[in-house]
Amino acid sequence: MTTMQTSRPTKPATTAGGRAFNFGAGPSVLPEEVIKQIQQDIWNYAGAGMGILELSHRGKHYDQIVADVDCDLREIGSIPANYKILFMTGGATGQNWLVPANLLPIGGTGDYIVTGYWAEGSVKDAQQYCQGANPTASIHVAANSADQKHSYIPSDEQTKYSAKPAYVHMTSSNTIYGTQWRGRLPNAPAGAPLICDASSDIFSEPIDITKFGVLYGGAQKNLGTTGATFVIIRDDLIEMGHKHIPRMTQYRTYAKDESRPNTPPHFAIYTVGLMAKWIKKQGGLAKLGQINRDKAGVIYKALDDNQGFWLSHAREADRSLMNITFRAKGGDALDEKFMTEAKAASCDGLKGHRATGGMRASLYNAFPAEGADVLADLIRDFAQKNG
Amino acid sequence: MTTMQTSRPTKPATTAGGRAFNFGAGPSVLPEEVIKQIQQDIWNYAGAGMGILELSHRGKHYDQIVADVDCDLREIGSIPANYKILFMTGGATGQNWLVPANLLPIGGTGDYIVTGYWAEGSVKDAQQYCQGANPTASIHVAANSADQKHSYIPSDEQTKYSAKPAYVHMTSSNTIYGTQWRGRLPNAPAGAPLICDASSDIFSEPIDITKFGVLYGGAQKNLGTTGATFVIIRDDLIEMGHKHIPRMTQYRTYAKDESRPNTPPHFAIYTVGLMAKWIKKQGGLAKLGQINRDKAGVIYKALDDNQGFWLSHAREADRSLMNITFRAKGGDALDEKFMTEAKAASCDGLKGHRATGGMRASLYNAFPAEGADVLADLIRDFAQKNG
Repeated sequence: MTTMQTSRPTKPATTAGGRAFNFGAGPSVLPEEVIKQIQQDIWNYAGAGMGILELSHRGKHYDQIVADVDCDLREIGSIPANYKILFMTGGATGQNWLVPANLLPIGGTGDYIVTGYWAEGSVKDAQQYCQGANPTASIHVAANSADQKHSYIPSDEQTKYSAKPAYVHMTSSNTIYGTQWRGRLPNAPAGAPLICDASSDIFSEPIDITKFGVLYGGAQKNLGTTGATFVIIRDDLIEMGHKHIPRMTQYRTYAKDESRPNTPPHFAIYTVGLMAKWIKKQGGLAKLGQINRDKAGVIYKALDDNQGFWLSHAREADRSLMNITFRAKGGDALDEKFMTEAKAASCDGLKGHRATGGMRASLYNAFPAEGADVLADLIRDFAQKNG
Repeated sequence: MTTMQTSRPTKPATTAGGRAFNFGAGPSVLPEEVIKQIQQDIWNYAGAGMGILELSHRGKHYDQIVADVDCDLREIGSIPANYKILFMTGGATGQNWLVPANLLPIGGTGDYIVTGYWAEGSVKDAQQYCQGANPTASIHVAANSADQKHSYIPSDEQTKYSAKPAYVHMTSSNTIYGTQWRGRLPNAPAGAPLICDASSDIFSEPIDITKFGVLYGGAQKNLGTTGATFVIIRDDLIEMGHKHIPRMTQYRTYAKDESRPNTPPHFAIYTVGLMAKWIKKQGGLAKLGQINRDKAGVIYKALDDNQGFWLSHAREADRSLMNITFRAKGGDALDEKFMTEAKAASCDGLKGHRATGGMRASLYNAFPAEGADVLADLIRDFAQKNG
């Protein structure tokens, strides 16, 4: 610990634009230059004489937005041509039942690796779907980290797949418990595509899309705001999807019509487009990944340097770069005091989920590095003063 | 026709804010004061230090938005306490299957009055849903105006209900064909709730909610922008809804948790809230209805005064106040010429749907009266010059 790092800001820190540092878990922070662009576009989009909120989803301006967002996301994520990028609604939670509805054969088995609250929800909703609509199918929990309050990611040895899973479902980063699959993925049986709820860490660092059959999530953490659900899906999975389910719930319906079989959440998709251009401007995922690792690194270091005072929830090897969960060993009153002081220093949205208590610092793509430095200083300083 | 009305603007007319008059069918125009409010709130919402797009959907600011939008819509629409206002996603098209999924009993019959393109879609999607998930149920078309290209609203005599419909589905205003149920509603059999796709005319004039079981629609025409689907539903229908369908597709799931069982399209719902406050400021639905009737009136009058030149698609008694469909008797080339001249005079979004050809002027709540006057002048002037 250096003296520099324990110096307390003499006045509340803020973002470059004078706003708070927003550590919220989602909806979450947007880049200030993106917000300024939206402010302009809401009044008059590209000289159209009308704002982005008012533009036809069948007009030439939105055609260009649709083309750009597809092209830019493909470039950023190195998404191969045999994958489609769909935009749906209903959030990642909607996909809990849409995945088995589309992809689980009659009488088939879907395997789930349960690493947190949202993965538990995926299992429950998949089970409920099957009971109502595919009663001969089954949901198999291949691994579950609940035995240690989801503080770790199960190993291959701890994972017991069913005989012939139709797919293996995983959650890449666990927003509430603060764990993440780091540098490895489930060793799914051959032929079973990986289906990944990637809400919390999509495009936060380089990713090999070809390892997945489907990556889905809400856009409001790393790629924009609420209203749009991204689904990156391999062509063969679109094709093999059930046709007896409602038309508007089939992946092929969105693949066929550029995600606008009806009026899409066009403002939310436009915002994803702005985020894609912003990520490109940062230097793409390699550069953004380094920034994100650095952001998380300074906060984890501040916690580790003061291990006598702070407790991290996640096992070190499985720590999420996106959601950092920690609390004071001295109890809830210290957590409350810390959050009060942090808020006075313009650090907001730190309250952890009731499942873990304490604090959660979400550091999605748009979260500025300065904010991580400010929080790290507060973490060190608070431990020194209250330890 | 007076000489005053044939005077041609010497320069392009614009809105008060210098923008185009947006006659688009949706996403469509917003009030300029609402847009300015959004521009502010996107940067810093109510001093929160973060913008509306970035605010937690579980925080106190959004709690207040949720409370206000419910309260304001109830006040505007005189919505009784035994109705809930839900916000879902997927648009009115999503409700095409959600209505039978929730409300059609096993083996039951849903009656549909088909008055246009969207009503045809409601029937098709309901049939497809039943084939896949409720094969003993049936969809009965009680009336269909397709015999005259949906230029009229069927009378009671033309409507043949099934023996015991579970519900009667209608579309209150037909965006593409420009007809509307004016001053009457289907005479549904006792016990069969009216289910109404009200996307195109919700809260455009006073409405007796108690005549309906469900009113639903996309918010992007009269109540905001894309991403939120309103569902105003009587409590008993929520309660009787099926429980075997996916949790996230049940109305009760949204009724239980203030429409936020998961991350909602919170920006779209916030925008509905702004529109609700704007409608109150206009003097509520009685006043707004008068403004809307006047807006449509000046355009219909310009068309009727030049009947030798212009053809209205809708039968006079069934004309929509929200979507006016017309074309030149002289053919498509004149329509194109008219739209080119209109666009030069800042009147945009007039291109009609391919089903009717010609022009469509949408005059939703936020469309300014000045724009209707400008279009009426153009209609008269063009007929004089080209007739």
